[in-house]
Amino acid sequence: MDVKKNIERLQDNIEKRYVLQHAMTVLSYDAETVMPAGGGERFGETMGALAEMQYGLLVNDEFRSLMKELLEQKKDLPIHLQREVEELHRTLKQIEVIPVEEYSAFESAQAHAGVAWRKAKDGNDWEMFRPHLEKLLEYAVRFKRYYDAKAPIYDLMLDDYEHGLNAEMLDGFFATLREELVPLIHEIAEKPQPDVSFLQKDYPAHIQEKLARWLMEVMTLDPEYCSLGQTEHPFTTSVSNKDVRITTHYYTEAPLSSVFSVIHEGGHALYMMHTADELNGLSLAEGASCSIHESMSRFMENIIGRSEAFTAFLLPKLQELFPEQMQGVDAKQLWLACNRAEPSLIRVEADELTYPLHIMVRYELEKRMVSGELAVSDLPEEWNRLYKEYLGVDVPDDSHGVLQDMHWSDASFGYFPTYALGSAYSAQILAAMEKDLDVWGLVGRGEFRPLVEWLTEKLYRFGGVKTASQLIQDICGEPFDPHYYTDYLKAKYRKVYGL
Amino acid sequence: MDVKKNIERLQDNIEKRYVLQHAMTVLSYDAETVMPAGGGERFGETMGALAEMQYGLLVNDEFRSLMKELLEQKKDLPIHLQREVEELHRTLKQIEVIPVEEYSAFESAQAHAGVAWRKAKDGNDWEMFRPHLEKLLEYAVRFKRYYDAKAPIYDLMLDDYEHGLNAEMLDGFFATLREELVPLIHEIAEKPQPDVSFLQKDYPAHIQEKLARWLMEVMTLDPEYCSLGQTEHPFTTSVSNKDVRITTHYYTEAPLSSVFSVIHEGGHALYMMHTADELNGLSLAEGASCSIHESMSRFMENIIGRSEAFTAFLLPKLQELFPEQMQGVDAKQLWLACNRAEPSLIRVEADELTYPLHIMVRYELEKRMVSGELAVSDLPEEWNRLYKEYLGVDVPDDSHGVLQDMHWSDASFGYFPTYALGSAYSAQILAAMEKDLDVWGLVGRGEFRPLVEWLTEKLYRFGGVKTASQLIQDICGEPFDPHYYTDYLKAKYRKVYGL
Repeated sequence: MDVKKNIERLQDNIEKRYVLQHAMTVLSYDAETVMPAGGGERFGETMGALAEMQYGLLVNDEFRSLMKELLEQKKDLPIHLQREVEELHRTLKQIEVIPVEEYSAFESAQAHAGVAWRKAKDGNDWEMFRPHLEKLLEYAVRFKRYYDAKAPIYDLMLDDYEHGLNAEMLDGFFATLREELVPLIHEIAEKPQPDVSFLQKDYPAHIQEKLARWLMEVMTLDPEYCSLGQTEHPFTTSVSNKDVRITTHYYTEAPLSSVFSVIHEGGHALYMMHTADELNGLSLAEGASCSIHESMSRFMENIIGRSEAFTAFLLPKLQELFPEQMQGVDAKQLWLACNRAEPSLIRVEADELTYPLHIMVRYELEKRMVSGELAVSDLPEEWNRLYKEYLGVDVPDDSHGVLQDMHWSDASFGYFPTYALGSAYSAQILAAMEKDLDVWGLVGRGEFRPLVEWLTEKLYRFGGVKTASQLIQDICGEPFDPHYYTDYLKAKYRKVYGL
Repeated sequence: MDVKKNIERLQDNIEKRYVLQHAMTVLSYDAETVMPAGGGERFGETMGALAEMQYGLLVNDEFRSLMKELLEQKKDLPIHLQREVEELHRTLKQIEVIPVEEYSAFESAQAHAGVAWRKAKDGNDWEMFRPHLEKLLEYAVRFKRYYDAKAPIYDLMLDDYEHGLNAEMLDGFFATLREELVPLIHEIAEKPQPDVSFLQKDYPAHIQEKLARWLMEVMTLDPEYCSLGQTEHPFTTSVSNKDVRITTHYYTEAPLSSVFSVIHEGGHALYMMHTADELNGLSLAEGASCSIHESMSRFMENIIGRSEAFTAFLLPKLQELFPEQMQGVDAKQLWLACNRAEPSLIRVEADELTYPLHIMVRYELEKRMVSGELAVSDLPEEWNRLYKEYLGVDVPDDSHGVLQDMHWSDASFGYFPTYALGSAYSAQILAAMEKDLDVWGLVGRGEFRPLVEWLTEKLYRFGGVKTASQLIQDICGEPFDPHYYTDYLKAKYRKVYGL
């Protein structure tokens, strides 16, 4: 068939899948934010059925032959459809080897595991979650094995989140981090900690919400296109570049938690809101890779949000909203409090410097679980052992240990390393941005628009049209180099702790 | 095919449609509560596509022949499937005459109209909404005409919300109300109004939310199965009897608004939560009729919630949560404030006595619009004229006039009368309940469980298995009689105003 007809057929298929994806995105968001627990079982059934419908739209002879023709006609497609066809082809290859009943059962199992994980975490009940995790892991491994009988399973999983990533590269990356950062962490352990007593007061949730909405405004997150919700674990999701949702959690005695989660999720949201219109409904709308997504959230959260310039800009607003709690606090104190580094238990509350250690624990455990070296039932013990070894902390219970993150309940094995990689990308991207913009002058005045425009021009708008490594090369003029990250952390924390 | 096989085919079809209905229910809930306005367009597309899929599952030869066989095998079906088959057959007859493109376009148009209505209401911009209403009205009339070339269109619409209802019956019903209630309303206009100054203070929204959650607990609305959200217009929706959602709105200077909207929506929610398990996913799970649904919500809101017994039970909680604002208020004062009757502009804020007049305005206008006697463009003027005539109030702008309700933006023509009818049913049901239970003793102690159990036994559990008239007959031992309602209102308001 001629290329014009084939593009129409492709777009028709994309639209049909977009409808299902839209429903699944909103159902999932709803399950995290609104759905009463009693709805969990039905939610699982419906998600399974919708996934089966999605599967049916890809895995059929007509679509296979369309893919074949489009791959031959690739050079005549617009660039974004060239890339989309590549991605679809790849997805098709991965899922057509999975029997449809297993595909649908996996989707239901994921939905049920999510509900079980929340209950298990709330009730500190690892045994409630364990069978779900075993089931998901079994599915995830089996699905990869269907696709590729030989390659290391964990590499196949990593590749889902960032094309080309593998354990060998990550071993090298984490070795660099360990080498450069662990001595610094030890040095800091000898120094007195910044005073954070002004944070341990009562910061009412409804005033924190006002602050969150102000932060969104500062970040140029227009409520016309981005909503703010509340969940135990903050996250971002999107239906299109005009319908993005972020969530946060308000702890009355830890106001910075919500501040930095809003800035973090806001960083994801900006990416999604400034992806080109033509990518709506395509898989490319999800972004270049999970690491690039995390680079954008952690750029905003850590590099911008925890900078001296931004915390000085934030202070008067904090003092306006919380006059009693913030009385007498100066800019230096606030900046130091935002950058206190201390090994701790909870990843999402960890500081920028010790954060990669939390990732290393998970990386280590995932790699061994997936390869079958570590049984799921031994996971809590190993978790606790590695937290002691890497971070020097004792895990008091599984809610504060192995049950703390939702990722494994979502079968997102291989996702965690993207957090550390994203942080490293963000430092390299900062160096490029500083060549073009007076970053700290702008941030100090709360002027985010030029930063957002720069990122839109260089990165946001492309979504997945460019790969992660292409983006880094094009933006920075060189390949990825983790030393930007370690240099940035060392310089910053030497200043924070007066080393 | 044998009946067992046919039941399996039916259940398979029901499950497939349930998946789509589940998605559409949650997407609609999301659109009202969370979705940024920018998502409106895509929401409309997706709803249209899902509706088209639903249509395809009913309107096809295989389903038609299944219906034909099941109607012949009806006596061998369990009672709930007998009724479901009747309802499905009826739905099939109504929609198979509509071309699928029109069916889908109508669903999209509805979704878009809802978004436009919210904007129009916020911006007091009737002209923004008018073309949407014209389009919906045209579709709604055309669809009924496809189905029945002769019957009065408005009767066909009324029949959708309550089988057997027609304009002649409603004319008689409203005439009774007018005759019995208007003289009382005039008498009251001469009397001094209760003091409500204690309500015109600052009642912070986050404390009102605590009150709302306490009210849900009192009403036995278990958060495991029923969530609470916030919207401009309160409503209730459900996915199953284990996943029900109510919403409310907190006005800081009108705390009773949220109190009674929670009790009202809570009344709907109890009905949905106590519908028999076997009805999940069936059309029968929606309830016996809209009037019966409204009877359950208005029973809780007005008959129970605004009673002397309940307001006396409520007072200490109000004083605990709002000690300054409620200082010195006694039970009599609170009861009177909850029952102040005065013609006003906004239906949802109207008192129990003048409420039916708001419905009469809408009934009158709908009847004329649908029959083509009244052009949509003349609607605001006629609205304002009738508010002056029936309620004696001047409408200052369309936001407080013709744009106040969402119903027409949803093409729910014929729905409004069910509110008045539901109120009337609830008074007759109270009379039956009083024969079995010490209603006011229980309510005065906040013991709702026996009431809920009585309603479950007599009404909730049946869903749509019994029709509205069957329910009234079975519960009350006699057919519907509007004088229970007018007698109840007259006795109550004579006491409130010392007549």
